[in-house]
Amino acid sequence: MICFRSDYSQGAHPKVMEALMKTNLEHTDGYGLDPHCEHAGEMIKELIGLSDCEVHMMIGGTPCNITVIAASLKPYESVVALRTGHAYFHETGGVEATGHRIVAMDGINGKMTPELIDRAWEEYEDEHTPLPRLVYISQPTEIGSVYSRTEITAISEKCRERNMLFYIDGARLGTALTSRGNDLGIDELARLCDAFYIGGTKNGALFGEALVIRNKEMNDHFRFMIKRQSGLLAKGRLIGVQFEALLEHGKDSIFFEIAAHENRMAEKLRAGLEALNVGFFSDSQTNQSFPFFPTEVVKELEKDFFFYEWAPEKDGMTPIRLVTGWGTKESEVEAFVKRTAELLEKKKACNPG
Amino acid sequence: MICFRSDYSQGAHPKVMEALMKTNLEHTDGYGLDPHCEHAGEMIKELIGLSDCEVHMMIGGTPCNITVIAASLKPYESVVALRTGHAYFHETGGVEATGHRIVAMDGINGKMTPELIDRAWEEYEDEHTPLPRLVYISQPTEIGSVYSRTEITAISEKCRERNMLFYIDGARLGTALTSRGNDLGIDELARLCDAFYIGGTKNGALFGEALVIRNKEMNDHFRFMIKRQSGLLAKGRLIGVQFEALLEHGKDSIFFEIAAHENRMAEKLRAGLEALNVGFFSDSQTNQSFPFFPTEVVKELEKDFFFYEWAPEKDGMTPIRLVTGWGTKESEVEAFVKRTAELLEKKKACNPG
Amino acid sequence: MICFRSDYSQGAHPKVMEALMKTNLEHTDGYGLDPHCEHAGEMIKELIGLSDCEVHMMIGGTPCNITVIAASLKPYESVVALRTGHAYFHETGGVEATGHRIVAMDGINGKMTPELIDRAWEEYEDEHTPLPRLVYISQPTEIGSVYSRTEITAISEKCRERNMLFYIDGARLGTALTSRGNDLGIDELARLCDAFYIGGTKNGALFGEALVIRNKEMNDHFRFMIKRQSGLLAKGRLIGVQFEALLEHGKDSIFFEIAAHENRMAEKLRAGLEALNVGFFSDSQTNQSFPFFPTEVVKELEKDFFFYEWAPEKDGMTPIRLVTGWGTKESEVEAFVKRTAELLEKKKACNPG
Amino acid sequence: MICFRSDYSQGAHPKVMEALMKTNLEHTDGYGLDPHCEHAGEMIKELIGLSDCEVHMMIGGTPCNITVIAASLKPYESVVALRTGHAYFHETGGVEATGHRIVAMDGINGKMTPELIDRAWEEYEDEHTPLPRLVYISQPTEIGSVYSRTEITAISEKCRERNMLFYIDGARLGTALTSRGNDLGIDELARLCDAFYIGGTKNGALFGEALVIRNKEMNDHFRFMIKRQSGLLAKGRLIGVQFEALLEHGKDSIFFEIAAHENRMAEKLRAGLEALNVGFFSDSQTNQSFPFFPTEVVKELEKDFFFYEWAPEKDGMTPIRLVTGWGTKESEVEAFVKRTAELLEKKKACNPG
Repeated sequence: MICFRSDYSQGAHPKVMEALMKTNLEHTDGYGLDPHCEHAGEMIKELIGLSDCEVHMMIGGTPCNITVIAASLKPYESVVALRTGHAYFHETGGVEATGHRIVAMDGINGKMTPELIDRAWEEYEDEHTPLPRLVYISQPTEIGSVYSRTEITAISEKCRERNMLFYIDGARLGTALTSRGNDLGIDELARLCDAFYIGGTKNGALFGEALVIRNKEMNDHFRFMIKRQSGLLAKGRLIGVQFEALLEHGKDSIFFEIAAHENRMAEKLRAGLEALNVGFFSDSQTNQSFPFFPTEVVKELEKDFFFYEWAPEKDGMTPIRLVTGWGTKESEVEAFVKRTAELLEKKKACNPG
Repeated sequence: MICFRSDYSQGAHPKVMEALMKTNLEHTDGYGLDPHCEHAGEMIKELIGLSDCEVHMMIGGTPCNITVIAASLKPYESVVALRTGHAYFHETGGVEATGHRIVAMDGINGKMTPELIDRAWEEYEDEHTPLPRLVYISQPTEIGSVYSRTEITAISEKCRERNMLFYIDGARLGTALTSRGNDLGIDELARLCDAFYIGGTKNGALFGEALVIRNKEMNDHFRFMIKRQSGLLAKGRLIGVQFEALLEHGKDSIFFEIAAHENRMAEKLRAGLEALNVGFFSDSQTNQSFPFFPTEVVKELEKDFFFYEWAPEKDGMTPIRLVTGWGTKESEVEAFVKRTAELLEKKKACNPG
Repeated sequence: MICFRSDYSQGAHPKVMEALMKTNLEHTDGYGLDPHCEHAGEMIKELIGLSDCEVHMMIGGTPCNITVIAASLKPYESVVALRTGHAYFHETGGVEATGHRIVAMDGINGKMTPELIDRAWEEYEDEHTPLPRLVYISQPTEIGSVYSRTEITAISEKCRERNMLFYIDGARLGTALTSRGNDLGIDELARLCDAFYIGGTKNGALFGEALVIRNKEMNDHFRFMIKRQSGLLAKGRLIGVQFEALLEHGKDSIFFEIAAHENRMAEKLRAGLEALNVGFFSDSQTNQSFPFFPTEVVKELEKDFFFYEWAPEKDGMTPIRLVTGWGTKESEVEAFVKRTAELLEKKKACNPG
Repeated sequence: MICFRSDYSQGAHPKVMEALMKTNLEHTDGYGLDPHCEHAGEMIKELIGLSDCEVHMMIGGTPCNITVIAASLKPYESVVALRTGHAYFHETGGVEATGHRIVAMDGINGKMTPELIDRAWEEYEDEHTPLPRLVYISQPTEIGSVYSRTEITAISEKCRERNMLFYIDGARLGTALTSRGNDLGIDELARLCDAFYIGGTKNGALFGEALVIRNKEMNDHFRFMIKRQSGLLAKGRLIGVQFEALLEHGKDSIFFEIAAHENRMAEKLRAGLEALNVGFFSDSQTNQSFPFFPTEVVKELEKDFFFYEWAPEKDGMTPIRLVTGWGTKESEVEAFVKRTAELLEKKKACNPG
C-alpha cells in the first residue's frame, strides 16, 4: 500500500531522529526551559532577521492556534477566518471552547481578502455583537494555494486599518516558502503579521511547531496560557532539539530541503495526472493535490493507494486529496500515475462514448 | 417625539403594573420558588395543553437562549442558526462564551429550512469537527415574517431525522400567534419543538419570559444552569406575577390582546406607507416593519420620530425599522404616515424627474 | 406566617413602586441608554464624591460579580475570596464558568485579611499556577459583620502591594453604612477599592444593583461584557428609575432610611433574644441575625415564622437565619421574641435540669 | 552537574528510542487511529484484565486530567481534589478553564479520605452551589506516598455512595505499583475507579500517557473531546509505539523495571540521608524524596546537583525535592549522599553547639 494519505503518516526525517538519539541522555530542565529550545529560538530569530520577538516551542498546530487566540483576545472579541480555515474547520470548536466566536467567511478561491474582512465587520454593530479582532489565515491555504506578497500585504494593511491582529497558521509553511511561485520570504512574512508559526509536524519532525510572536501584547504571560491550555510538554526540549536539526544551516537547512522535496513530488504527481487530462478542484502550488476521478477509478485506486476522498461524489466524479511527505519517493508517484493511466484507459475502453 | 424605536421603550401594560402593585407586600420565597411562578407555569401548561413539561420564569430572552443552549449541549456539540438569528447576531457571542459554536447560515428569505440544516451538516465530518445538535429559530423571524405550520413541521422533522434538538426563540411569539396569516397554534408549536419561550418583555411585561421545556434531558438540573448563568432573580415571583396578569383568561387574555394590537398598528402603518408606494425590504407580518425611504426623508422623519436606521444607505435609500408596542396609539401611526406623505410629496416637487 | 426568610421576600418600597408607575408610559431607549440610568449614575457619583468613575445599572448581584470578574481578569488570573463569599458559595460556580479559579480561603471571623491574601499567594508559583489578581469581599460580610475602616484599608493596601484588584460586593451595603458601629463612609469605601456595587434588591428595590467602577481597565468595553454575560435588560431604565427613587436627597434618601430600618429591626430582635440568653453563632451588626435554639424550639417556631435553618443540628441545637427587610414591622419582631420566650420557657419546664 | 531535578529531565529509555527508530518509516493513519495505538490498548487491557473499557493514547498528564474532567462533568458539576493535587496545584487553572470548579481540600498526610469528600459536600446545598461529581486523586500522591488498597477502596465506596466518579491520576503510577509497601495491583486499582491513566512521560517514555476509561458515560464521544482540548497528536502512533515498547512482556516489561529502578534509587538515597539523621517532610515510598537541610547546605549542594527547593526556608531549614528517573545511576546517588555528609560534617564543625 503506497501512502498519499497525509504528510504526517511517517515518523521523522532521519536527521531529526539522529538529533533526538544524540541528545537522549542529556539532563535538562523541563517545560521548554532548556538550552535546545533557547537555541532553536535564536536560530529562528536569525532566520527571520528579527530579534525583537518571542519564539515558543509548541506541541502541535491546534494548540498553537487555540492558545494564540485565547491569549490575544478579550472575552468579547472574535476571530475572522475562512470556513475552510483549520481553526474553524478542523479543530472541533476548540476556539469556541475558549469563549470566542469565529466569524466564518466563504473564501474567494480558498483565500481571505480585505473585502472579506470588511464583510465580516458588517456583522459588527455595538455592544450587542462581538468585536472582530484577529484575522486568521493559513499559508499555504488549506487547498494548497499560496498567498502572494501582494495578497498578504493587503490583508496586513486591512488589519492595521481595522485595529486587528494578524495571525498566520504555518502548519505547512515550508511548502509555501519553497513553492515555485512564491514571492514572499519568511522574513517579510514575519514582518507583515503579529504572530505565525513554522510547522514542524508536516515538515519532517515527529511533532512540534515553532510559534513566533512579534506583538508584545499577544505574548503577555504566554507560558501561563500554554500551560492552561494543556500544551506545555514536560520534556519540552524535544521540540527544541528537532528544530535545531531542521534549521541547522538556515536557508540551506533540511527544513527547506524537505519542503522542496514535498513540493517537487507533488508537482510531478500533478504533471503526470494533467498529462492524463485529469481535472483538479484547486490550483495547488504546494504538497497537497486535489484531483478528481470517476468514482469507480477512485475505488480501484484505493486498493493500492491510501488517501482521503475529499468531498462527496458529484456527477459521478469523486475528488481526492493526495499529499506528499518528507519520505515520499519518486517511484511511488510514478506508480500512482501509471496505475491511474491504466484505470482511465480501461474505463475509456468500456465507455467509449 | 413619537416612538417606533422598539417594543420595549415603554414600561408595562397597566394590568401588569396593577398586578405588581397588588402583590407588592406579599412575602414569598425567592428565586422563583413561589406560588405565583407555580401558578403562571400551570396557566401556561393549560394554554398549550401539555402537562408533561417544565416551565421556567426567565429574566430575559438572551438568558433564555444561552441557558437553554448551555444546558442542552455537550461540550463538542454546536448550534445551527441563521446569521440573522438573535442568538448569533445580537447577543455578543454569549453562546460561544459557554463554549459552543453557532454554525451561522444565510437564511432563505430570513428563514431556516431543512435544506439549510443539511448544508450545515456538510461542515461535519468526525471528531475533528463539532457535532451539530440544536437548531435555533425565532418565531416570528427577526425580520417580522412568520413560519407556517408546514415550514415549522419540516424543520421539526429534519431535527428528528438528524437527532437534533429544536428550540424556538419566542421573544415576540405573541405577534406570530396573532398574525393574520398564522396557521400554527401555540399548542401545535409546543409539540413540534423541544423547548421554546413565550416572550413577555416585548408583549406588555416589564421584563420576563416563560421558558417551556418538553425534552427532559434539556431540563436536567436546569435551575442550577439558570443560576450558573446569572439568571436567577432574587424576587423571582415578579415574573410569575406578570405572566399571571398577562395570561389570565387564557386565549382571551391581555397577552393576545396586546400582541394583536401591536400587529394591528403595524398593519395600519404598512398599509399607509404602501399607499404612498413606499417599498419594504422584508415581508413582515408582525409588529416590526422595515420600509425604506430616500435618506433625506429619513433624516427629516428623525426630527419627529424615534426609530432605528436598519442598514447602511444604498442607492440613496435608507431602510429603517418601525416597531409598534403595547402602548402604540392609532394617532401616532397616522402622524407617521401623514408626515411621510408630506415629505415624499415635497421631495417629488423638488425632483420631479 | 411572619417572614424573616430574606430581605427579598417582599416587593419594593412604596416610593420605588410609585416611581415605576409614574414613569411607566415614558418612551426611552433600551438597554440602560436612557436619561434615568444616566441620572441615577450622576446621583451616585455625587453621593460618593467622585466624578472619574463609571456607573452601570446591573440586574442583580450575581451578574455584577461574575461580569466584573470576567471583565477584569486575563484567562490565567484568579480571584481570592472566602469560602463563605457569595461569589464562591452561592453562585453555582458562575465565576469558574467564565474560566477563572476562586482561591477559596477560610475566613477569620468571617472576614478576609491581608494575611489570608498572602496565604493565597503561597499557592502561586509560576506559569504552572494561576496568578491571583482580584480580591473579592462582601461588605457587610455574609454573616452580618461589618469591616472597619482599618480592616478595609489594610486589604486595600495589601492589594496595591500585590498588584491586585479590589472588588467589594455590596448586596447589603446600605446596612453596613448605617450599622451602629460602622466608621467607613461610602465615599471612603469607594476610594479604597477598584469597583463595588450598591445593592438595590435587598434594600427596597424590586431588583437592580448600581455597579461603580473606578479602575479604567476593568471598565474596558464593559457594556459588551454585560451583554455577553446575559445581563443587559431591555427595559434597562427600570433600574435607573428605582435608584433615582432610592437615592433622592442623597444621604437623607430612603435608601439609607430603609437600611437603617432593617438594622433597627434586627437589633431589636437580637436584643430581645439576648435577653432570653439565646446564643448567636455570629456577631452580626446588620440585618441578618444567626441565633441558635434547641432543635425542637426551631421546629415549633417554623409553624408561625418563615426562616432558614442555617446549618445542620449540632449537640441538639440548630442555628437559624433571621433577616429583616424594608417592610419588617416592629410587631413582627415582638411576636417572634414573645413566641421564642414561651417556647424556651416551656422547654425549661419540661427539662428543668 | 548531577540531576535530581525531575523524572523528565532525560529523553526516553533506550528500548523506547529503539522502537521509535524501528517504526520510523512506516506509514500509518494519523491521530491515534493506527495499529500501534490499537495494539498498545490491547496490551493494557490484558495487563489490567479488563476487556470492557477504552484506552486512549494521550499526549501528557495535564491533557489527560483536563479532558477527562471536561468530558465527564455537566456544566454545573465540580471536582473534589486536594490543594496539593496536580490538577489543582500545577495546571494553571486548566480545569476551571473548562468551566468547572475544583473544591480544594487540605489533605490528611497528603491524602484524600472519605471524610474529606463528605466535608467537600458540606459546601453543597442546592441550585445555588455546584454539585460535586468527581473525585480526583493521584497514585502515588504528590509527596510520594502510596494509597493502600484499604484507602483506595474506602474512597471508591464513598464515591459510589455519593454518586461520584472516581478518577486516578497515574503520572507516576509505575512507582506506586512497584513500591515496597504497595498492596494494590493495577488490575484491582482499575476496578476501583471509573478512569485512570498509566503515566509514560515519567516512566521512560519521551512523552505520552495511556488513559483507561471504564465508565461508558465518561467515554462518550471522547475523541471529540481530546481534539477540542487540543490533545490529538497528528502522528498519534508515536504514543502507541512507546507503550508497546514499555509494556512488552506485561508484568515483566521495562515499564515495571524502570519504575522499580526509580524506587530503588530513591530508597538508597533516603537510606543514605537517614543514616546522616537528615529529616524528611513527607514519608515518601516512591521516586520522589523530600529531605530538608540547613539552607546553607542546600546552597552548597546546588553547586553540584540540580534539584528543586520545594518550599520556603523555615527555621533555617529548606526542604528540597530529589527525584530519580529511569536513567539515574547508583553512583549519582552515592555522590549526593557523600557530598551531603561532608557538608553536614563541616557545618557541625563550625557550629558544634
